[in-house]
Amino acid sequence: MKHTGNKVEDLKIAYIGGGSRGWAWGLMSDLALAPDISGQVALYDIDYEAAKDNAIIGNMHNDAPIPTSHWDYRAEKEIGDALTGADFVVISILPGTFKEMESDVHTPEKYGIYQSVGDTVGPGGILRAMRAVPMFEFIARSIEKYCPKAWVINYTNPMTMCVRTLYKTFPGIKAFGCCHEVFKTQTLLAAALEDMLGMERPAREEIKINVLGVNHFTWLTAAHYGNIDLMEVYRDFCEKYHETGFTKDCVKETFACSNRVKMDLFRKYGVIAAAGDRHLAEFNNGKQYLASPGQARSWGFDLTKVSWRQEDLKKRLEKSRKLLSGELTFVPTKTSEEGVLQIRALLGLCPLVTNVNLPNRGQIPNLPMDAIVETNAVFSGDSLIPVLAGNIPMSVYGQISRIVSEQEMVVAGCVERNVDKIYSAFRNDPLVTLPDCDAKKLFDEMVENTKEYLTEYLI
Amino acid sequence: MKHTGNKVEDLKIAYIGGGSRGWAWGLMSDLALAPDISGQVALYDIDYEAAKDNAIIGNMHNDAPIPTSHWDYRAEKEIGDALTGADFVVISILPGTFKEMESDVHTPEKYGIYQSVGDTVGPGGILRAMRAVPMFEFIARSIEKYCPKAWVINYTNPMTMCVRTLYKTFPGIKAFGCCHEVFKTQTLLAAALEDMLGMERPAREEIKINVLGVNHFTWLTAAHYGNIDLMEVYRDFCEKYHETGFTKDCVKETFACSNRVKMDLFRKYGVIAAAGDRHLAEFNNGKQYLASPGQARSWGFDLTKVSWRQEDLKKRLEKSRKLLSGELTFVPTKTSEEGVLQIRALLGLCPLVTNVNLPNRGQIPNLPMDAIVETNAVFSGDSLIPVLAGNIPMSVYGQISRIVSEQEMVVAGCVERNVDKIYSAFRNDPLVTLPDCDAKKLFDEMVENTKEYLTEYLI
Amino acid sequence: MKHTGNKVEDLKIAYIGGGSRGWAWGLMSDLALAPDISGQVALYDIDYEAAKDNAIIGNMHNDAPIPTSHWDYRAEKEIGDALTGADFVVISILPGTFKEMESDVHTPEKYGIYQSVGDTVGPGGILRAMRAVPMFEFIARSIEKYCPKAWVINYTNPMTMCVRTLYKTFPGIKAFGCCHEVFKTQTLLAAALEDMLGMERPAREEIKINVLGVNHFTWLTAAHYGNIDLMEVYRDFCEKYHETGFTKDCVKETFACSNRVKMDLFRKYGVIAAAGDRHLAEFNNGKQYLASPGQARSWGFDLTKVSWRQEDLKKRLEKSRKLLSGELTFVPTKTSEEGVLQIRALLGLCPLVTNVNLPNRGQIPNLPMDAIVETNAVFSGDSLIPVLAGNIPMSVYGQISRIVSEQEMVVAGCVERNVDKIYSAFRNDPLVTLPDCDAKKLFDEMVENTKEYLTEYLI
Amino acid sequence: MKHTGNKVEDLKIAYIGGGSRGWAWGLMSDLALAPDISGQVALYDIDYEAAKDNAIIGNMHNDAPIPTSHWDYRAEKEIGDALTGADFVVISILPGTFKEMESDVHTPEKYGIYQSVGDTVGPGGILRAMRAVPMFEFIARSIEKYCPKAWVINYTNPMTMCVRTLYKTFPGIKAFGCCHEVFKTQTLLAAALEDMLGMERPAREEIKINVLGVNHFTWLTAAHYGNIDLMEVYRDFCEKYHETGFTKDCVKETFACSNRVKMDLFRKYGVIAAAGDRHLAEFNNGKQYLASPGQARSWGFDLTKVSWRQEDLKKRLEKSRKLLSGELTFVPTKTSEEGVLQIRALLGLCPLVTNVNLPNRGQIPNLPMDAIVETNAVFSGDSLIPVLAGNIPMSVYGQISRIVSEQEMVVAGCVERNVDKIYSAFRNDPLVTLPDCDAKKLFDEMVENTKEYLTEYLI
Repeated sequence: MKHTGNKVEDLKIAYIGGGSRGWAWGLMSDLALAPDISGQVALYDIDYEAAKDNAIIGNMHNDAPIPTSHWDYRAEKEIGDALTGADFVVISILPGTFKEMESDVHTPEKYGIYQSVGDTVGPGGILRAMRAVPMFEFIARSIEKYCPKAWVINYTNPMTMCVRTLYKTFPGIKAFGCCHEVFKTQTLLAAALEDMLGMERPAREEIKINVLGVNHFTWLTAAHYGNIDLMEVYRDFCEKYHETGFTKDCVKETFACSNRVKMDLFRKYGVIAAAGDRHLAEFNNGKQYLASPGQARSWGFDLTKVSWRQEDLKKRLEKSRKLLSGELTFVPTKTSEEGVLQIRALLGLCPLVTNVNLPNRGQIPNLPMDAIVETNAVFSGDSLIPVLAGNIPMSVYGQISRIVSEQEMVVAGCVERNVDKIYSAFRNDPLVTLPDCDAKKLFDEMVENTKEYLTEYLI
Repeated sequence: MKHTGNKVEDLKIAYIGGGSRGWAWGLMSDLALAPDISGQVALYDIDYEAAKDNAIIGNMHNDAPIPTSHWDYRAEKEIGDALTGADFVVISILPGTFKEMESDVHTPEKYGIYQSVGDTVGPGGILRAMRAVPMFEFIARSIEKYCPKAWVINYTNPMTMCVRTLYKTFPGIKAFGCCHEVFKTQTLLAAALEDMLGMERPAREEIKINVLGVNHFTWLTAAHYGNIDLMEVYRDFCEKYHETGFTKDCVKETFACSNRVKMDLFRKYGVIAAAGDRHLAEFNNGKQYLASPGQARSWGFDLTKVSWRQEDLKKRLEKSRKLLSGELTFVPTKTSEEGVLQIRALLGLCPLVTNVNLPNRGQIPNLPMDAIVETNAVFSGDSLIPVLAGNIPMSVYGQISRIVSEQEMVVAGCVERNVDKIYSAFRNDPLVTLPDCDAKKLFDEMVENTKEYLTEYLI
Repeated sequence: MKHTGNKVEDLKIAYIGGGSRGWAWGLMSDLALAPDISGQVALYDIDYEAAKDNAIIGNMHNDAPIPTSHWDYRAEKEIGDALTGADFVVISILPGTFKEMESDVHTPEKYGIYQSVGDTVGPGGILRAMRAVPMFEFIARSIEKYCPKAWVINYTNPMTMCVRTLYKTFPGIKAFGCCHEVFKTQTLLAAALEDMLGMERPAREEIKINVLGVNHFTWLTAAHYGNIDLMEVYRDFCEKYHETGFTKDCVKETFACSNRVKMDLFRKYGVIAAAGDRHLAEFNNGKQYLASPGQARSWGFDLTKVSWRQEDLKKRLEKSRKLLSGELTFVPTKTSEEGVLQIRALLGLCPLVTNVNLPNRGQIPNLPMDAIVETNAVFSGDSLIPVLAGNIPMSVYGQISRIVSEQEMVVAGCVERNVDKIYSAFRNDPLVTLPDCDAKKLFDEMVENTKEYLTEYLI
Repeated sequence: MKHTGNKVEDLKIAYIGGGSRGWAWGLMSDLALAPDISGQVALYDIDYEAAKDNAIIGNMHNDAPIPTSHWDYRAEKEIGDALTGADFVVISILPGTFKEMESDVHTPEKYGIYQSVGDTVGPGGILRAMRAVPMFEFIARSIEKYCPKAWVINYTNPMTMCVRTLYKTFPGIKAFGCCHEVFKTQTLLAAALEDMLGMERPAREEIKINVLGVNHFTWLTAAHYGNIDLMEVYRDFCEKYHETGFTKDCVKETFACSNRVKMDLFRKYGVIAAAGDRHLAEFNNGKQYLASPGQARSWGFDLTKVSWRQEDLKKRLEKSRKLLSGELTFVPTKTSEEGVLQIRALLGLCPLVTNVNLPNRGQIPNLPMDAIVETNAVFSGDSLIPVLAGNIPMSVYGQISRIVSEQEMVVAGCVERNVDKIYSAFRNDPLVTLPDCDAKKLFDEMVENTKEYLTEYLI
């Protein structure tokens, strides 16, 4: 890496899961549009062909019809070749395939357990962790070996458990988890400003917040635009919309929600739940918002079917094909993700305070040390320091500490390959409202369905 | 109080709830049999007649056919008269009557929620707290006014919330909560020693433990007899008995249990649950051990009906009548309670390390400060210092922290007379596995049933 | 206050100590040059005439020959009139006069104790605190009464003890202490970059640091320019200059230093001391750098005589006279202070992360809670959140914790008007290397010299 | 070990430093007089002959003219042979010889630094640590290898640094440090009771205290006899005797003191300093109590000369010779040490709450975690749990935290064999009131004098 004035050249980025059709392309776009950095990107994927395709697509950016910075993309067969010399490592993998995810999400439905996402907590999140943890152990060991001083950005779910595994395996790692769910709540608050006060809707970055919790179950204890207190605005907003929902200008698609869950949680606990309703619902007792698909719909969100993901993948594969054949041209457009911004901030090229997932060193004093928590952090050159976000408010402390405990136990169980320990945590998950015998049957069935990826466990 | 050599004379004890037929008589017996202390006991009760009867019974002890120490009992109409000059205050009241407890325990059954005790957590515990908190505010204010330096021993349930209220109202109070549930587990461990190692069964005081948690949901992270590690013994014991239960030598009565819940929890979490199964069950998800009376029975315990308590009270009232009429003679016999031992230890008359409920000042570092927690403490002259019991093990941290959160919110809601806040906690209780609408209906019905005691709440 | 788009109009600022010839003028300049804020400034000073003069000078800014924002200045006789309606309060007072400071700084010299500044710690700092604490109690009570929601910026020394008094008196106050000493070390690091790596010297704001400690005894555990690790650069820099000192481009004046103390401390403790050497020296054992004026000079700094301050004041009074008479025209020029930047950041007008003095809520986990500590904090609209600066490194923990203890005891002693308690702390100050009898004699003499300001103490 | 009823037979104790003429004999006596334990003691010493002599003397106990329990003593040439199978390990060694101690204590006198003991802190304590730490690393590694589950009792000074080294080297060790200094203050409080209240003087064990701090600089925040508050009694006692001292019934010998230092500290800080004055003095600024031998004497204590220790050793060697030759008969008499009591308590044979040195796990929340601190702890079968002693009071927090910092840095420096790091701590020691150049000269001279034991350091 060459740091000259306000530019960094010859930056080396390793992308684990570099065959992805989606996240990878977004990152490529954002890199192309970052005028002050350039260099190389090594793509590593267990699907080497996919990585090779993406390298071709990535290199196309250099010929985009708009000015871009130059990046050399290449696919690597060995993770060590991708990581050697890396200044940054991006991890965005799918732990298993959609076949396994199909089981994660839909097998529990046979037992009356419905999941709106199924990749974070609940039966699906736990089984996904069982697959992911050994993979992240391997990644962490590889980073320790090939690029121990690199900054590591994880996008993979279950976020908390993946990042926890990185630190458990290589305590000296400089890793953090990056997630856009909080952004959506900033956007909602901007919309509330417009709706309630008749102001012009500000950019979501202009909504300043204090965020704390665990990934996908994050909460705002303060929010301001300029020095307008948004807690007050939101209180009135929730009174107005908690029954009808608020969807105006919201994304109209699979992931959309009416924010009714979010408003219900605010009215109950007095702090702002800050993730999509589909995620928030999964952290509550199963009978609360997810007793049935109909109940979910009545709360204004839908359960994301894995078949939808499979269809969506097909479309993205088709797009990939067209890009490679030249039928489509890649025109980089800025995404709403912050990964490249974070890279630039860690290079000292711009200031940044944003929310990330890091081990608790005291940023949330009343949660267990070392657990992975989400708070704001100050990014600067080679430095990432969380703010003192403060204690979890008592009204939601029980629900958050319970999830921390569950996830700590699941990771411990996965690291020890101890299925009984994992089951004990599974059994206590808020969505697992079953009698013991059914819970065990469900767990065993889910393990059986995905056993191809669980060969290291003593079952 | 006069401290001479190894004796204390003219000790003054105030008993709040001094009309009780049960706890009060036990304390009277233990006081009579404590050769190194004597003095006066003032009985205060909202049922003044009951207190008067008990004063008569108490004074009979001085004429017992065996040697006893002398105590003068008197009933007081005003709490201030009872408290003035008190060195110790004992609180053992019933918050409301069995009519209210009938609603606490049995109304939820209409909604499929079964409670084995119903006085600690769950719907019953929370409604009981709504009645108890204002009473304990009054008691704490009275103590602050009339005897701020007295040691205060509480026996009333919900223990955690009652003691929390005392400290919230009068932060300088020297109060602690005293409960015998842990003793039963010491007794079980003594039995396990006999059963597994063929040793003579030791006295329960000889079983040394490290205890931590919240009242009725306490756990042992270490247990020894001499330097025999009882964790190992108990592990084998649980393997032997977890299916059949272990009732040999256990009390044969309403409160009996087969210890199957306790053993199940040990096998899941690796630490020893240390309370009666009837209490332990109520801290778990409602579907776990309390889905139905039949499920409870299959786990080896019964739900205690309030009608049983009413019958039992009748027997005790009849006993009272006979004592007063002289049909029965009071012969003091030592109880298994530790109250008098604690009084003597706080007078510097004997050493004592035992479990009590105190505000968390760091004895359990990973629970919220100021919450009421149960650990061992060292008693000595005018001094009560908890041991550093250590962190709650991660395997049960989620369940315990969740209850701490619930109870903190309930007490806060009661102190603020804020019914919505109380309901938010109620709604998240592990036993309340209902959809929102039913949960609210149940709560409202329970409030309505007991409204006579809830006039201070803004409903 | 009127918040419109990216501007705030009708802002109300109260300036306590508004008769100051120096700080006040600087703030006036910076306010005039802040294009996005305007409003009123109320000047309050026990020297009302001085405040009136300053109001005239302040209003002159509106007619400056360059574009400025508009501010209406007025003097107030009553503090309540100045504070009512204030959005911000600036405190910059002299506790006592230079006559008292003369005693603070020079009386100890008779006993062989030399102080380079004498306003923070040491005999001088402690006596100054005795005068300041009652004043700050009055200010805090006034703020609580007249503008409890205002943000309060303190510039007065002893910084730590003044801010501590504000919070002790009015716990809900939104106050912080603001000091430029850390900036000088950023500047030195920028110079080191130039000197060691031949780079162009960056602006001091470009030097990103993690700062922690107490005011004037602050330390950097990390420092970067871009992602260049300045700890390494500084290590070499200290090897090169620790004997000769480094004064190139340093301010040539009374407050100048050769940075030898700073480099000596780095070589001993491995972390970067971040304040002027004159301040740093006073926190060390008196024999270390301040055994005599000659020893100080040999370390490259001079003791600031109070006579110099008196001369300097004369010059500033003369300047005031000329401004008022029109002999001089006020042309606002940006200072190197950050007060106005902080005001703008707290209005949500710009991002800011900088060092401030705040009560410890966990930003430095191994210092006592509630003590005033200096770390970076994130400013945003109506929000000030410290970063998790981390533990004080063990190599300097003893020296810092010792000062925290001293200052906590001095403030407690002042609040209680308990001279014995203050003396106990005085006696243990690092500069007080005297036998007990001499220490007491010195203390008594200093109290006697300044008794006019100590009438509230029971002496 | 064989645990039968209330007895333990075949206990195995390893004594490191088993050639000692003093501590070893005391332990032998106490073991002989403990009726409920018996077994073997392996003596290991680098002076094998001394160990052999002691084994002979130890075995003589079995033929004492009074009833004793049976112990087989043997000397071992290899530490592994002594440790293998040990249930308890006692460590009581002299790090170096009196020749080195001569330098530790008296070399600083050339520079005007006087030490009353010279084995804990100050120049002497630090140099002694330099010799001791590598020895304790070796001992800890040996324990880890040969008897990792044994309880380890250390008596060696510098206590804090020796125990810290044990835990740093083998974190799983079950070690604690045992010191009788606190007992003396209990004895003084008993005497104060007699003197002030005319009561019969109670046994020192009857004085119940809350103790906290670091070894030899320990403090009582509460003290009671029965429920008499001794803080009040001691306050009056200090007023009466702080000038004259109180020596009535105090030991008349080298180690005697008039308790004036102790009383002076109480009057300054409001908490009871709880160690001999000779130790306490060394933790204060050198000019306070130790400016000269005369000043020490004026405070009622004397500096212990190493020549006295050498003479004393001669007498003990002579006694050893006489015991071996049969000129003297060994009649065991109970010492005032608690080592054997602690062993019995850890075997579950008796209850015990007493003061010990353990890693800080939160028993003193405002001192650094893992530092070795002294507080009360509850002993029971195979269990040692500190009480929650509480925060160090702010009035002495600075002085204690400063010593913790010093000792942490010295141990770190010794473990790293980093002489510069050790010197940085040395330089800040309260007794080192010298200018830098003299401090360095002194340090170098002390290192030179003892270099025979410092060959592992890179000097």
